[in-house]
Amino acid sequence: MTGGADGLSRLSLNQKTTELWSVEEAAAGCVRAGIGWIGLWREQVRAAGGAEAAGRIVREAGLRVSSYCRGGFFTADSDEGWRQAVDENRRVTEESAALDCDTVILVCGGMRGSDLDVSRRQVEEGIAATVPAAAANGVRLAIEPLHPMFCADRSVIVSLRQSLDIAEQFPAETVGVAVDVFHLWWDPQVWEQIERAGKRIFSYQVCDWLDPLPDVLLGRGMMGDGVIDFRRFTEAVTATGYTGPVEVEIFNQKIWNQPGNQVLTKMKTRYQSLVAPYL
Amino acid sequence: MTGGADGLSRLSLNQKTTELWSVEEAAAGCVRAGIGWIGLWREQVRAAGGAEAAGRIVREAGLRVSSYCRGGFFTADSDEGWRQAVDENRRVTEESAALDCDTVILVCGGMRGSDLDVSRRQVEEGIAATVPAAAANGVRLAIEPLHPMFCADRSVIVSLRQSLDIAEQFPAETVGVAVDVFHLWWDPQVWEQIERAGKRIFSYQVCDWLDPLPDVLLGRGMMGDGVIDFRRFTEAVTATGYTGPVEVEIFNQKIWNQPGNQVLTKMKTRYQSLVAPYL
Repeated sequence: MTGGADGLSRLSLNQKTTELWSVEEAAAGCVRAGIGWIGLWREQVRAAGGAEAAGRIVREAGLRVSSYCRGGFFTADSDEGWRQAVDENRRVTEESAALDCDTVILVCGGMRGSDLDVSRRQVEEGIAATVPAAAANGVRLAIEPLHPMFCADRSVIVSLRQSLDIAEQFPAETVGVAVDVFHLWWDPQVWEQIERAGKRIFSYQVCDWLDPLPDVLLGRGMMGDGVIDFRRFTEAVTATGYTGPVEVEIFNQKIWNQPGNQVLTKMKTRYQSLVAPYL
Repeated sequence: MTGGADGLSRLSLNQKTTELWSVEEAAAGCVRAGIGWIGLWREQVRAAGGAEAAGRIVREAGLRVSSYCRGGFFTADSDEGWRQAVDENRRVTEESAALDCDTVILVCGGMRGSDLDVSRRQVEEGIAATVPAAAANGVRLAIEPLHPMFCADRSVIVSLRQSLDIAEQFPAETVGVAVDVFHLWWDPQVWEQIERAGKRIFSYQVCDWLDPLPDVLLGRGMMGDGVIDFRRFTEAVTATGYTGPVEVEIFNQKIWNQPGNQVLTKMKTRYQSLVAPYL
């Protein structure tokens, strides 16, 4: 089910792909490109005047919001820091609701101190403390495992297995996972874990792994420019029953420096040939 | 059992830590620093006139060779390429024997094409094809899982679990694993896999993970400058019964640019406080 004559009905522009665009510019870009979904980032939503204002912009453009990035960053040097992180996450669930977005992406936070177990416990407890607010606001929390190269600074949650071990402690309608191929493609256990995830896949994100990797944070590639097997990933995610949007999320300074419309054109073409046929 | 009054008896200088030193210079540096072990690299061994000549240099210096780096790189675009890689690995086992070194480190090779499974199969079959030569030459093959950020270009083997899944297909006296904390510290399954490894740990290597990571390949840190919990790793490895050398292997351009003697002095101090007490 690729949906739509042009196979674009499930394509979503994650705003990070066009980092320099405001919410308004990104919304207009999607409309021009015939893309019906957008994934919003908190910084840009703030710059647009907050969630109410940003929500109005995208609704008036006729778009739906596929995900809100990002909650998380639960790890902290102190209990007080952890509590502030939880408060912040509760606000993120309110903002997501105001955007009519049912999915908050959680980037869980890197190591604090040198005890990885403590950091991971802070994440679990942070998610537990955020679940009631998520449920009350009618939004779902998607735990995103990040590539292990981000374990120190961004996410002590580094595999789909680990994300599911946490998610399964909570109701399946509220806590699930985000499958981003960039973070997971190397993992020999990823196929069994995608199958295990079942209905808990709340978000599916794509971009490519370039070889050699030009930069740890800003070296992600356009689909087709790297080594990732999009067919296998997309078929595996589809086999779980996932029918949601597919976000293209590319952190890449060179792509950010290109005109946004040009990026969207290439992104559509690559998505149509490499991803859509396997949905 | 730290051995020796100064706790240095198990410390080994992996030659990569002093990349600019020849075998002769590294051997002399070890002698000056009171280090009894050295891990040699193939490029430097070649530059020293080959394994016979290099073996003579280190023996005359009174050193033992803790490991020979490296075999592996089994992945190839063609069957012919794979066969050449196997031939090369057989030669590596001969060279290792000539160095009186019982442990060859295998860095298994990155992806070829876009099929990770095919690449991983090439590695398994390459190891199987090398085992007879290893046994005949009286050396052991240590499969080294590399950090997943090297999956595309250096090693499709990315976890200790995966290394053991392969190693266990072969006799425990011939095929085992190398535990390098830099590559494994992020893995939630590493503790159970170290325990599982038991007598199959053939090499233990240390350095630190700097945060932020300065460079994918050349950004490794001196122990104590990053986030790795050396106590926990060293205790876990020791609990398996491992009594072999501990190699310090640091790929870092800045450290390479420092005078070698200075690097060895710092390495000894950090090893004595962070690693040796837990052996």
